[in-house]
Amino acid sequence: MCNVNTSASMTAEIDGAARAAAAPGTQIVTRSPLFGAEAVDSAAESYLCAVGVLDLTARLLDAGAFDFDAVILAGFGEHGKDALQELLTVPVLDIAEAAVHLAHLVGRRFSVITTLAASIPAIEDRLLLAGLSAHCASVRACGLGTAAVDADPSGAVDAIVAEAQRAIHEDGADVICLGCAGMAGVTEAITARLGVPAIDGVAAAVVLAQSLVGLGLQASKVGGGTPPNPRSQWPLSTALGLRL
Amino acid sequence: MCNVNTSASMTAEIDGAARAAAAPGTQIVTRSPLFGAEAVDSAAESYLCAVGVLDLTARLLDAGAFDFDAVILAGFGEHGKDALQELLTVPVLDIAEAAVHLAHLVGRRFSVITTLAASIPAIEDRLLLAGLSAHCASVRACGLGTAAVDADPSGAVDAIVAEAQRAIHEDGADVICLGCAGMAGVTEAITARLGVPAIDGVAAAVVLAQSLVGLGLQASKVGGGTPPNPRSQWPLSTALGLRL
Amino acid sequence: MCNVNTSASMTAEIDGAARAAAAPGTQIVTRSPLFGAEAVDSAAESYLCAVGVLDLTARLLDAGAFDFDAVILAGFGEHGKDALQELLTVPVLDIAEAAVHLAHLVGRRFSVITTLAASIPAIEDRLLLAGLSAHCASVRACGLGTAAVDADPSGAVDAIVAEAQRAIHEDGADVICLGCAGMAGVTEAITARLGVPAIDGVAAAVVLAQSLVGLGLQASKVGGGTPPNPRSQWPLSTALGLRL
Amino acid sequence: MCNVNTSASMTAEIDGAARAAAAPGTQIVTRSPLFGAEAVDSAAESYLCAVGVLDLTARLLDAGAFDFDAVILAGFGEHGKDALQELLTVPVLDIAEAAVHLAHLVGRRFSVITTLAASIPAIEDRLLLAGLSAHCASVRACGLGTAAVDADPSGAVDAIVAEAQRAIHEDGADVICLGCAGMAGVTEAITARLGVPAIDGVAAAVVLAQSLVGLGLQASKVGGGTPPNPRSQWPLSTALGLRL
Amino acid sequence: MCNVNTSASMTAEIDGAARAAAAPGTQIVTRSPLFGAEAVDSAAESYLCAVGVLDLTARLLDAGAFDFDAVILAGFGEHGKDALQELLTVPVLDIAEAAVHLAHLVGRRFSVITTLAASIPAIEDRLLLAGLSAHCASVRACGLGTAAVDADPSGAVDAIVAEAQRAIHEDGADVICLGCAGMAGVTEAITARLGVPAIDGVAAAVVLAQSLVGLGLQASKVGGGTPPNPRSQWPLSTALGLRL
Amino acid sequence: MCNVNTSASMTAEIDGAARAAAAPGTQIVTRSPLFGAEAVDSAAESYLCAVGVLDLTARLLDAGAFDFDAVILAGFGEHGKDALQELLTVPVLDIAEAAVHLAHLVGRRFSVITTLAASIPAIEDRLLLAGLSAHCASVRACGLGTAAVDADPSGAVDAIVAEAQRAIHEDGADVICLGCAGMAGVTEAITARLGVPAIDGVAAAVVLAQSLVGLGLQASKVGGGTPPNPRSQWPLSTALGLRL
Repeated sequence: MCNVNTSASMTAEIDGAARAAAAPGTQIVTRSPLFGAEAVDSAAESYLCAVGVLDLTARLLDAGAFDFDAVILAGFGEHGKDALQELLTVPVLDIAEAAVHLAHLVGRRFSVITTLAASIPAIEDRLLLAGLSAHCASVRACGLGTAAVDADPSGAVDAIVAEAQRAIHEDGADVICLGCAGMAGVTEAITARLGVPAIDGVAAAVVLAQSLVGLGLQASKVGGGTPPNPRSQWPLSTALGLRL
Repeated sequence: MCNVNTSASMTAEIDGAARAAAAPGTQIVTRSPLFGAEAVDSAAESYLCAVGVLDLTARLLDAGAFDFDAVILAGFGEHGKDALQELLTVPVLDIAEAAVHLAHLVGRRFSVITTLAASIPAIEDRLLLAGLSAHCASVRACGLGTAAVDADPSGAVDAIVAEAQRAIHEDGADVICLGCAGMAGVTEAITARLGVPAIDGVAAAVVLAQSLVGLGLQASKVGGGTPPNPRSQWPLSTALGLRL
Repeated sequence: MCNVNTSASMTAEIDGAARAAAAPGTQIVTRSPLFGAEAVDSAAESYLCAVGVLDLTARLLDAGAFDFDAVILAGFGEHGKDALQELLTVPVLDIAEAAVHLAHLVGRRFSVITTLAASIPAIEDRLLLAGLSAHCASVRACGLGTAAVDADPSGAVDAIVAEAQRAIHEDGADVICLGCAGMAGVTEAITARLGVPAIDGVAAAVVLAQSLVGLGLQASKVGGGTPPNPRSQWPLSTALGLRL
Repeated sequence: MCNVNTSASMTAEIDGAARAAAAPGTQIVTRSPLFGAEAVDSAAESYLCAVGVLDLTARLLDAGAFDFDAVILAGFGEHGKDALQELLTVPVLDIAEAAVHLAHLVGRRFSVITTLAASIPAIEDRLLLAGLSAHCASVRACGLGTAAVDADPSGAVDAIVAEAQRAIHEDGADVICLGCAGMAGVTEAITARLGVPAIDGVAAAVVLAQSLVGLGLQASKVGGGTPPNPRSQWPLSTALGLRL
Repeated sequence: MCNVNTSASMTAEIDGAARAAAAPGTQIVTRSPLFGAEAVDSAAESYLCAVGVLDLTARLLDAGAFDFDAVILAGFGEHGKDALQELLTVPVLDIAEAAVHLAHLVGRRFSVITTLAASIPAIEDRLLLAGLSAHCASVRACGLGTAAVDADPSGAVDAIVAEAQRAIHEDGADVICLGCAGMAGVTEAITARLGVPAIDGVAAAVVLAQSLVGLGLQASKVGGGTPPNPRSQWPLSTALGLRL
Repeated sequence: MCNVNTSASMTAEIDGAARAAAAPGTQIVTRSPLFGAEAVDSAAESYLCAVGVLDLTARLLDAGAFDFDAVILAGFGEHGKDALQELLTVPVLDIAEAAVHLAHLVGRRFSVITTLAASIPAIEDRLLLAGLSAHCASVRACGLGTAAVDADPSGAVDAIVAEAQRAIHEDGADVICLGCAGMAGVTEAITARLGVPAIDGVAAAVVLAQSLVGLGLQASKVGGGTPPNPRSQWPLSTALGLRL
């Protein structure tokens, strides 16, 4: 389980959501990158965090300290999954595709409710590349940033529910994906008020990771890329003097 | 877990595959319809089996004997899921979509290898309706019917592997979905020889059902159909004098 | 001409609409299944009716009493056409695709106005599978069930016209397909009030069946399925003690 | 019925094919433009012929001599249908879309076999604009020009059958549309040798025109263009001193 | 640079817009056809103008007077580009595709604002055939014909800006393409008021033509059509007694 | 002009290709990131280079040393354009989309020939997100890495021509995009041998950048992201002690 940003409180929150969703025998370890951004509010920060996550993974691999059965990239629509999968043979899941896969299983058309409008294009792009756009009714923003969602959970529920109602009544959605790792705590309250299933990506990714591990499924290595070259300045955190 | 046909040996085989994939706490009950077809080799039989499955479900509901957390329709590309979901609030999964969802998580493009060429259109139709066609490299047939797969497992492995190689090298697939409930037993042998992940739909559906149940996700009831009318000749098995 | 449900009044109404559309030399025979549902208001009933239609066809074939040049499945968006075509070499037409083919010939974008919202997904699915979605502006429901349409034709015209206006002005439709076999009687009144062509599926299917028969076109049998196996419980009506 | 080119022999051939397909009560009148090209082997000639057809129609309208119930544009994939429909309220059908609509009714995937490879893009474009590409397996050329098809019908059958076999076996087609007005005469021979339905566009358009006329369907005039302005040099044939 | 209609004032306006966009070394020659329509308000006129443009080109070629490095067809969504390219080896650009290519480079989703609603289908068709529909948010009409745009530029700016605001706020556009050659003069005023880039097709085509010529890129001649046959009545203007 | 990797020889080569394509008045400045990878052979390196490019841009902005009219990201299919555009108001072009836009203008269907098969998915993804997939015939690899292309230009021409021939004859391409910044030097030799236009992305991006700058077009800022937050570890090169 990897938070993409460097915020300790967000990392703790994601860790909690993951543990709540995990089956008894599943061990959850949540890490955040050694460098990066405290919150991802721009594409530039998304790339920086992607490199931070890759860097952490490379460091763990180099140190012989990588012993996970699967990795979850806990950024909704963030960059970096393709590269992370390239470094690893265990499955890598991102929370956007995880939520959307489960949405297909419990409904006919889903909408994503994210934080701010600036995140919509990135989420649309992720779903298109993942081949999961055909049943997407809409990607909408509730207008509250991650910090605002954290600070005022009941206000966040109101804003998310209001936007989700529009997705249901105007766009024809019958399932709602919560498009931000920080919304995990409000899933139940939202489901109760909407009358349709609401899906949190962190929880979805945990149960899907368990599914893959339970069946012994590894990532396909046909046609994929190769690990980075020793000529690259990689892992960057070593040059930055950062310790694991 | 519901086998769509009335073959006792196939029901047992599916039951075994499901149990092998299930987590310790999961209880598997495998049933087959009270009437229908022993094997599904035509669209007419697929519809007959769909009604058989619906009939069994209605009988169990009427008898107060339905107490499952999820239902798996164990026919790859068969008809009936939409109607079965209409009768139930617990999630209904079909093994074709289940296999394909997991395929997305471990690769970039998947192919389905089914039994006979006559099954290809039905599988293509199911994937298109499920919104899961964008990453489908191909649906191919190994040329052996279900009975032949059962009778000669090692010959089946050869035939499936040969067709899967074509899917990988000619169509660009990097994951293989085994498009028949009867192929469950050969998954490992195929994975070993192909070098890419092979996914059995029965196992996939079991772990995905566990995922949904673990998160408490029910099927969406917004915009869906209504249960059948009392004026209908339903459940049919009562008229046929068949007992649960 | 096959009504998909068992309602005698609906069968008579479809028979009348078909006769009104038929060319002088065309003989119309309208049948309904030996068992099934009196009206199709759910997917479960749609499957039951599909099996009823298949059963009737199999009985007629077995009795050497099948001597039609074409078969029309008179359910808008119902299941079963693929299986019915599998049993027969004469063309099988369903009234949804028939209406939509003619709509392409007289306009640029069409909308379907059906009875209740619960029927929308099934119609959307049929059009997608038939490869006829690209020019579909929308599928909308007028909010009246089949019984209500029958009971109050002038009220039905009002409701259908109101929804069709929305399709024209909000969705850009310039042709309207009437999405229910029971709307045949109101086609003219609707065309008169809308100023755009309105197409009834029963009439459309009759003239298209005449077209195919006139050219001697049979259904393609390449790549299709095989007829059901003798091991199947088929035809079911025999077990039910029903006579032709 | 309007041949798009000025060849008298082709006009006669199309007239014969149309009469052979027409129902007893249908009157066929086949005309060719007052100016244009003797055969359409280029896009420039296709545009010239489109204007020739429009010119003829305008002349007939101006002379009060237009009294047809429907017009068929007998060029497979040629330009001009949108403009011709704009001038008229009776339905205008082009033989490419007509063939393809019937192909949908008797099979699952169709291929078009045209004359020369240079015609393929124009046909692909027509099908895409008509919203009829989803079930198109391929558009292929038999390598013989229209003149060659006319001069050696049995050689043409061989060439068309050979290419159609490739469409069936390599592209998955189960219906063949004959993509040239001049292929009408060989339809039966081809069907006999292929074992799948072959459809001639001229015949298809005749029976579809009968269908529309039989139901009293006119072309939609919502959202369409307006007739040409008196400031235009139109009809051109008057300036050219040509008489009807 | 070729205006598609025969209006001298429009030709002068297009010439001015082209010269304003051209680099210092670029020579602009603007011609209009020898016959055709003064304005294109219908599909019939669009075809007539296409033939007029082809005719002019053929005459220039025949007279040895064609010495351009590229040709721009200055009709937004008009017919004829495919045929014009067929006659020439130098690149042919139409102003609709030119505007839309640049729109991709400065934004994420574009809308086209054209004159009258009757022009929308033709523009949608052009973009679909050009493979440039995926990022098209909408094609909208400002409700003013070309003459009205010319007569009252400041009123035109108001009408275009109002419709563009709807495209931005309701359809999600972030770039506006001005869908009429006559809107060239108001581009700056519109950009200033909208706060998003507005692109004029004539200017776009000029800079793209310079791009192709600068790199020495010629049109591909693989798979294209052939020049018209000597049997055709071509060039038509000779028969009409018109001189270059 | 920004090379995405840190190789000085590649930077010089790109600079040369850009200067060769530029118009007389255009000034070309080619930079490479302060840190990153010497060559991009993996997704991880692509992300690292994206951050390197963003970092360089942020440093130049912070130092008041950014005074370019447009920026070209000289990696074919690499990550980072969205974030780079977010930082800047001048247009950002990537060489993949640039080549493909020009390919649309000179042909009907294009193929991309890249270096190694591992680069194919990234290029397919870029084209899909850019809305430029509809006319893509194929993305193929010539089997030589960037270093090999540099070391043996005439061998590279042979390998690229061989693969391009397959694209033309098997996939229907009529234009070839050279899918690697290092192929700029061989464009002419390839065009000469193929008989279809070959397009180098660096040259294409230079002329398109000139086009945008010539028209005064800036990037749209509606709906886009926001610049990175001061809390982020940004620019990274400062922490790494690297100087501009």
